[in-house]
Amino acid sequence: MIQIDRRRLLADLRKLAEFGKFGTGVDRPAFSAADMEARAWLCERMSDAGLDSKIDCVGNVFGRSRANGPGVLIGSHSDSVPRGGWLDGAMGVVYGIEIARAAASGAGRQAVDVIAFEEEEGSFLPLLGSRSFCGDLKDGEIDAARNSSGECLSAAIAGVGIADRPAARFEDGRYRAYLEAHIEQGPRLEVEGPKIGIVTAIVGIRRFRVAFTGRADHAGTTPMAMRQDAGRTSIRVAGDMIDAFERNAGPDTVWNIGKVTFEPGAANVVPSRAEFLFEFRDTDTVVMDALEQRLHEIMREANAAGPVVATLEKTANIAPTPMDAALGEAIEAASREAGAVSMRMPSGGGHDAMVLARHMPTAMLFVPSIGGRSHDIVEDTHEDDIVLGCEVLARVVDRLFA
Amino acid sequence: MIQIDRRRLLADLRKLAEFGKFGTGVDRPAFSAADMEARAWLCERMSDAGLDSKIDCVGNVFGRSRANGPGVLIGSHSDSVPRGGWLDGAMGVVYGIEIARAAASGAGRQAVDVIAFEEEEGSFLPLLGSRSFCGDLKDGEIDAARNSSGECLSAAIAGVGIADRPAARFEDGRYRAYLEAHIEQGPRLEVEGPKIGIVTAIVGIRRFRVAFTGRADHAGTTPMAMRQDAGRTSIRVAGDMIDAFERNAGPDTVWNIGKVTFEPGAANVVPSRAEFLFEFRDTDTVVMDALEQRLHEIMREANAAGPVVATLEKTANIAPTPMDAALGEAIEAASREAGAVSMRMPSGGGHDAMVLARHMPTAMLFVPSIGGRSHDIVEDTHEDDIVLGCEVLARVVDRLFA
Repeated sequence: MIQIDRRRLLADLRKLAEFGKFGTGVDRPAFSAADMEARAWLCERMSDAGLDSKIDCVGNVFGRSRANGPGVLIGSHSDSVPRGGWLDGAMGVVYGIEIARAAASGAGRQAVDVIAFEEEEGSFLPLLGSRSFCGDLKDGEIDAARNSSGECLSAAIAGVGIADRPAARFEDGRYRAYLEAHIEQGPRLEVEGPKIGIVTAIVGIRRFRVAFTGRADHAGTTPMAMRQDAGRTSIRVAGDMIDAFERNAGPDTVWNIGKVTFEPGAANVVPSRAEFLFEFRDTDTVVMDALEQRLHEIMREANAAGPVVATLEKTANIAPTPMDAALGEAIEAASREAGAVSMRMPSGGGHDAMVLARHMPTAMLFVPSIGGRSHDIVEDTHEDDIVLGCEVLARVVDRLFA
Repeated sequence: MIQIDRRRLLADLRKLAEFGKFGTGVDRPAFSAADMEARAWLCERMSDAGLDSKIDCVGNVFGRSRANGPGVLIGSHSDSVPRGGWLDGAMGVVYGIEIARAAASGAGRQAVDVIAFEEEEGSFLPLLGSRSFCGDLKDGEIDAARNSSGECLSAAIAGVGIADRPAARFEDGRYRAYLEAHIEQGPRLEVEGPKIGIVTAIVGIRRFRVAFTGRADHAGTTPMAMRQDAGRTSIRVAGDMIDAFERNAGPDTVWNIGKVTFEPGAANVVPSRAEFLFEFRDTDTVVMDALEQRLHEIMREANAAGPVVATLEKTANIAPTPMDAALGEAIEAASREAGAVSMRMPSGGGHDAMVLARHMPTAMLFVPSIGGRSHDIVEDTHEDDIVLGCEVLARVVDRLFA
């Protein structure tokens, strides 16, 4: 049985948080100096754990066990959003290192490989590392990608001196499972009580730009009946969409209107143009299709009423990614053995597991986020919960080799 | 009877439009070079019309008849919004000059004074000229006023070399009426048919900042029931306000939501803050009070529902200004004599007449705006309508001296 070492696990996590330390969090975007220094240290730690480790041509740190497969791959990412938290991604990587070295010091015959993916957060190109590892990058994607300052991804890769290295690639048949532990990044575990979240699926996302074109008029001199008020129509349509989702959404559906813009945007001018961003997420494509259908119906009604012209543009369409059910049962059983209450839940955010799941049985395990906070330096998880998550994951690995 | 000269009237209007000409409109904000050149020319034209004319310490061009009062004051403003139309304000001033010179070449005993107010549009301080003329400026108002570039009004006045001049001031008892003709700046006359609008009142304006404070959350990982969504609440409240005004507004009430802002303003972040600007206008204070009451009720309901905190801040509160009823009847009779159909209507925009009406009987006459457009270089009125408006106003003056 794999026995993890609480103090060693926490010490490594705290050490990793020193790279790019920013207040109580980290500022460690992909290919920054802090990110690359952290990767060099992770590569050493994997080596110390008995793995053959290297940093590849996109920055992935891959530690391969010398044991023969089939084995398991454990990991996550070690880049952060700007001024982000210390656990997002990092925790799943350090779980991998801790379990690999605990396994090596035991019977030593389990092939536990570890990976710290690069650029999950998407400063340049989201999920870069996992997509490269799985051979899912399309020609030219790296060359086309730039960050918000206009810097080229290829220049960033060249700048850290790794462009000529070989790519770490997924080895067909080697893995029974990819296991990714992560902080929840939401409030459900904390509010509902369980310490372990078993991810049923990573939600699909559909995102829309809802735009309205009317006519600018003087808001004092133009009678109400003679207006083509893009703003008023947009509020009506947004209200109808809220109604529709409140009535028809599934229990796990989440949706958001995150941005609204009126033009020209003056108190005394009837808006000529209005736009809002609507997105919704769910794990069930049937539910998502029905909801999208309602959006189209609302738009048709708005255009039939006129005179403002309303358009719906789909700007993102990401399919849900179900996690492996047998692995989910293994996490449930492992939690029970460890004396932890678990619950099944969707992941509302994206993860490298979305990519890996297309290639091998994949599972995700969540630990509670204090206050549900993440992507901010206040992000945190109680130490006991961090340790419990790693113990449960180690037990899952035991079960896979049993 | 005062006989106006069609060709002279139109020629002066076209000439005035050369100052600050911008495409088919004018760019003649207060105290710009073009504005001051236009004022020098207007001062000359008033002189040529037999008036004692001068430019005062705030830029007003005042032409005083040598005839004894009581008489009438005719005018408007000759400054424009940036890249505005050629008739807004200018037409009412040139009507005054035409009627004064036509009166002088007749019996010559009517005291017809003319004024071109400065800075009605409010680059620095709206209604500056008319408020100065009526003695309504408060101490320190000029010193505190700045334009959107941060330039001081007092520096602008000094810069055009008029700071040391005496102020033109309203002479108590001299006027039976202030008459201001203006383009409608809205579509009603054109759509409904009459050529002359008799302004019953200049609307009051109440303007509000409606703000909502919630909590930013990840829009994927935070279940709907755990959110404090300032954006969703703002759309609900805006929809309730639209409902309330559609049901309860008076026949002449106009209202507008001209700007909406969500923060932080990302598709995948639940808005922590939302704000919209709501304004409404009416000529009837009782109607306005009842409508404002409904806004407060809607806010109370929103705050009772929670958890988002909603606040209503009144940012403008301008009372309606009724026009003189007897003068309105004179305009109606004069229109009939001139063979023109007239209609009574509110003025949805503000005018210098709002200020003058506190000191003397005041009336406004509207002529149609093509397409209802103004504050834009496309602003225009058919020449026949321009001439008809001046003929009707001349007949009103005749009646006042009859």
